[in-house]
Amino acid sequence: MNRDEIVNEILKKESAICVGLDSDFQLLPDFLKNEKMPQFAFNKQIIDAVSDKVVACKLNTAFYESQKMAGWQEMFETAAYIKKNFPHIFLIADAKRSDIGNTCLQYAEAFFSHFDAVTVTPYLGKDSILPFVSKTEKWTILVALTSNIGAEELQLQRLETQEFVFERVLQNTKNIVSDSETRLMYVVGATKSEYLEKVRNIIPNHFLLIPGIGAQGGDWESTIRLGKTKNDIGLLLNISRDIIFSSKDKNFAEMARKKTTFWQEKMKPLLFNP
Amino acid sequence: MNRDEIVNEILKKESAICVGLDSDFQLLPDFLKNEKMPQFAFNKQIIDAVSDKVVACKLNTAFYESQKMAGWQEMFETAAYIKKNFPHIFLIADAKRSDIGNTCLQYAEAFFSHFDAVTVTPYLGKDSILPFVSKTEKWTILVALTSNIGAEELQLQRLETQEFVFERVLQNTKNIVSDSETRLMYVVGATKSEYLEKVRNIIPNHFLLIPGIGAQGGDWESTIRLGKTKNDIGLLLNISRDIIFSSKDKNFAEMARKKTTFWQEKMKPLLFNP
Repeated sequence: MNRDEIVNEILKKESAICVGLDSDFQLLPDFLKNEKMPQFAFNKQIIDAVSDKVVACKLNTAFYESQKMAGWQEMFETAAYIKKNFPHIFLIADAKRSDIGNTCLQYAEAFFSHFDAVTVTPYLGKDSILPFVSKTEKWTILVALTSNIGAEELQLQRLETQEFVFERVLQNTKNIVSDSETRLMYVVGATKSEYLEKVRNIIPNHFLLIPGIGAQGGDWESTIRLGKTKNDIGLLLNISRDIIFSSKDKNFAEMARKKTTFWQEKMKPLLFNP
Repeated sequence: MNRDEIVNEILKKESAICVGLDSDFQLLPDFLKNEKMPQFAFNKQIIDAVSDKVVACKLNTAFYESQKMAGWQEMFETAAYIKKNFPHIFLIADAKRSDIGNTCLQYAEAFFSHFDAVTVTPYLGKDSILPFVSKTEKWTILVALTSNIGAEELQLQRLETQEFVFERVLQNTKNIVSDSETRLMYVVGATKSEYLEKVRNIIPNHFLLIPGIGAQGGDWESTIRLGKTKNDIGLLLNISRDIIFSSKDKNFAEMARKKTTFWQEKMKPLLFNP
């Protein structure tokens, strides 16, 4: 999907919500746990229920890998189902991968066959990011400033130039390819909204993927106000547990839809009013 | 495996070599590519041939993930085969994972069921590392200073305190649990041996996993001289491509053994002579 297609979807649905399918097997409704592919069965019902209210869908690979081969299959089945039935939903593998150059090509191959985007961590530098970004028609989402407490230990340390480490990551990578605004996004946690002005000073136009809304209690209002781009919103607002685990009853998908609608209506004025 | 067991193996075999099964499907001998599980068939022959010359074995997950479900299966079959037949070989999943706390627990579950150790990246801070380190009887190997060019862009930048970023990573994590020397190792590339004194100033006793020897041309002599611990070697010296792709002929495993012996004999005096 190209940037225009993502933006059109946001404007059409009046939503910038990314639903996070962190479908932890332990937390699934009990009646699904005996299904042949319980995570896939769960994801299918969730995405069927919320597809017209979300513009993106993020699968955190950890929750599938913990189920070994079976989980890996459930993840790819989910991805294939979404791409087939909802081709306009932007599909993200939240894999936070990283390795030296020749090895990253292998990860790019693993995920770009089924997903539109993959998340990547920056500790190893540009040569570990280029193999992802060099794939045209696909998106790399670089982890810049995360929503957890530990972000302070490194990302929010100052370099001798007085820049924060996360600022250096943005500076180093923002021009990694000439058209990076059309295939590179950044992760910035909603719990770190006080740094969004700094982020936007360095990358005024790149799309941001924002975790930390909902269960993690991130400040979504400041995030939207300070994070929105001038012309095309430029935000994907991820909500995972708060939507997908709204209920453990038979009506879990319906409740997930209700929660999605709740968030969509709450965010709409801030996102779309001038 | 505990630290004593690893050290005993090193002393017994007079080797600190870790063989890296970066078994890229494209690079396998052609006559293996039609096997039902080509990567597993390849790995099995390699490990059978070198098992008495190596103390550790590292599987880089990228080379298996690129083959999707099948590759994931080949990786776990390989791990199970090694643990069953060579229980004293220290088995590492080189996964370079990272995520926020609750999610990391999922990764720990994925890898610690089959492997003795998993590699982890430090960009997200201690709360992203603790879920791994808190597993007793298992090892976390934290990426500190990598062997690629891009290491300079972040790991070798100076903080306002004048520490290098990688030094802060070591400082922040070295006491993450009270007995960290018995379940936390660090990755330090052999191409960065000029920094090993700094590394050993901060962590004199932790084991180091050293990539970059062989195809990447790292300085193994300086690495051993400056990196060895006082009492128990404290090094795992990884060689991947240079061993496993010694030949593409029927005798590839025998050639891999020859190359392993070549390295083992070359390193032995520096490792074991006082």
